[in-house]
Amino acid sequence: MDNSRCIHRVQYYETDRMAIVHHSNYIRWMEEARLDFMRNNGADCVDIEYRGVQIPVVSIDCRYKNSARFGDVAETEVRLTFFNGIRMCFSYRSFLQGTDIVLTEGTSEHCFIDENTHRPVNLRRRLPDVCDAIKKILTETDN
Amino acid sequence: MDNSRCIHRVQYYETDRMAIVHHSNYIRWMEEARLDFMRNNGADCVDIEYRGVQIPVVSIDCRYKNSARFGDVAETEVRLTFFNGIRMCFSYRSFLQGTDIVLTEGTSEHCFIDENTHRPVNLRRRLPDVCDAIKKILTETDN
Amino acid sequence: MDNSRCIHRVQYYETDRMAIVHHSNYIRWMEEARLDFMRNNGADCVDIEYRGVQIPVVSIDCRYKNSARFGDVAETEVRLTFFNGIRMCFSYRSFLQGTDIVLTEGTSEHCFIDENTHRPVNLRRRLPDVCDAIKKILTETDN
Amino acid sequence: MDNSRCIHRVQYYETDRMAIVHHSNYIRWMEEARLDFMRNNGADCVDIEYRGVQIPVVSIDCRYKNSARFGDVAETEVRLTFFNGIRMCFSYRSFLQGTDIVLTEGTSEHCFIDENTHRPVNLRRRLPDVCDAIKKILTETDN
Repeated sequence: MDNSRCIHRVQYYETDRMAIVHHSNYIRWMEEARLDFMRNNGADCVDIEYRGVQIPVVSIDCRYKNSARFGDVAETEVRLTFFNGIRMCFSYRSFLQGTDIVLTEGTSEHCFIDENTHRPVNLRRRLPDVCDAIKKILTETDN
Repeated sequence: MDNSRCIHRVQYYETDRMAIVHHSNYIRWMEEARLDFMRNNGADCVDIEYRGVQIPVVSIDCRYKNSARFGDVAETEVRLTFFNGIRMCFSYRSFLQGTDIVLTEGTSEHCFIDENTHRPVNLRRRLPDVCDAIKKILTETDN
Repeated sequence: MDNSRCIHRVQYYETDRMAIVHHSNYIRWMEEARLDFMRNNGADCVDIEYRGVQIPVVSIDCRYKNSARFGDVAETEVRLTFFNGIRMCFSYRSFLQGTDIVLTEGTSEHCFIDENTHRPVNLRRRLPDVCDAIKKILTETDN
Repeated sequence: MDNSRCIHRVQYYETDRMAIVHHSNYIRWMEEARLDFMRNNGADCVDIEYRGVQIPVVSIDCRYKNSARFGDVAETEVRLTFFNGIRMCFSYRSFLQGTDIVLTEGTSEHCFIDENTHRPVNLRRRLPDVCDAIKKILTETDN
């Protein structure tokens, strides 16, 4: 499994008047890291979307430990914690690059829906190859 | 014609590490003000979109005169400067509420496309009622 | 106590390719609603910030129940659930305007820091008038 | 001179309900590309900011030629077109990676201000080493 961290250089437009990254942007970094992680492990969400299945966020949480600033680079580590074809969960930890300083810890929960009906779909029936790829990630993850 | 200015309270997440509104957000305020202006004048872009016509931005420019800060309220005045069924242009001026202090001046140019083919459409043929409503705005505008 | 809901018209730039509001924007709406709620109840965060105290987010969570779309207006109801001068917690519920349809439910936890030292401050000692105003909100809240 | 293009993978949160990147995000990509370009050429804006000089945007414009979508990667090429210590101008062109397809063309104009007084500064007097580095970029640019 490819466990490489997602690298994100803090952008000026991501900072706020406290001169730190605005807390809402870490939620976006979680998405960026999740999409990278999936693509690196054979389950590209671009492909899934273009095959008619969308993956909305059902719930999200984030704890802010330390702040990133302009000039910093963040590294986010992603872990797939649950998947049964209907529901999928991830956990995230962001670090200041090259350090043990934790920026944020978070989780997200997702489902799968049809892009036209917006009804839930079971990935096992709808996209079995993708389902297998995600199951493989789960198996290889040391949970 | 309804010339009322679009009121926007500066949000914390719109500020950057200079403690002013990040310049990209004024581009978003222009969109917000344009949609308000259209809706107030009988050409609701929500309705146009849901009838299958999208209105992408072809070009945009903005000059930054003064900065808005957390706690400020901005007022944006919109003017329709051109419309021929195929192309539509607006100009914008944002003020600090209750003052003559100009925050930004800008313009935007738009076309109309079909939501499925993404090909340009002539609003006169596609949505004649909307075309008439926009022409009416242009006629009533003191350009 | 002023319990009025924070009104937010969905902006085009807040939608994503699922044609719904991107989930990160609800985190921003929580901030917008919280700042409105505080201002309406005599504890204006603009004033607090300009007196040298910042109120960073310590943790956040959000559950997504239904989706808002372009053309929708959201109403967010805010409740202060904890405050002791050092820590402050809120809960949020967003609705589609004029309906019982819940968009999101969330919570946020905050602390208070000095804008220069970035060290935690006790609001009771630093800004006693603000501390009293927030305590008053808590007392009047039916928790 | 380092002319390498700035690579940016389209993020899901950057798309809008037209399923293309929202036009305001290209303004942010211009900033990202400009900061990369400066850093790669010996004039790191992080360093300039932390030495007390801010570089606000005075004006911006952008023409939208083609749309980037989820799954695309954009490459932005930056050119320094003017610099005299007081004013600095750039032009930008974004491409779909690995193609000649132009996404956007734009320009930006900047000045230099003191972070405390917010008054304009002449970089020649305030940060002569940075001024020399930027002049060197201009000299090596084939305008």
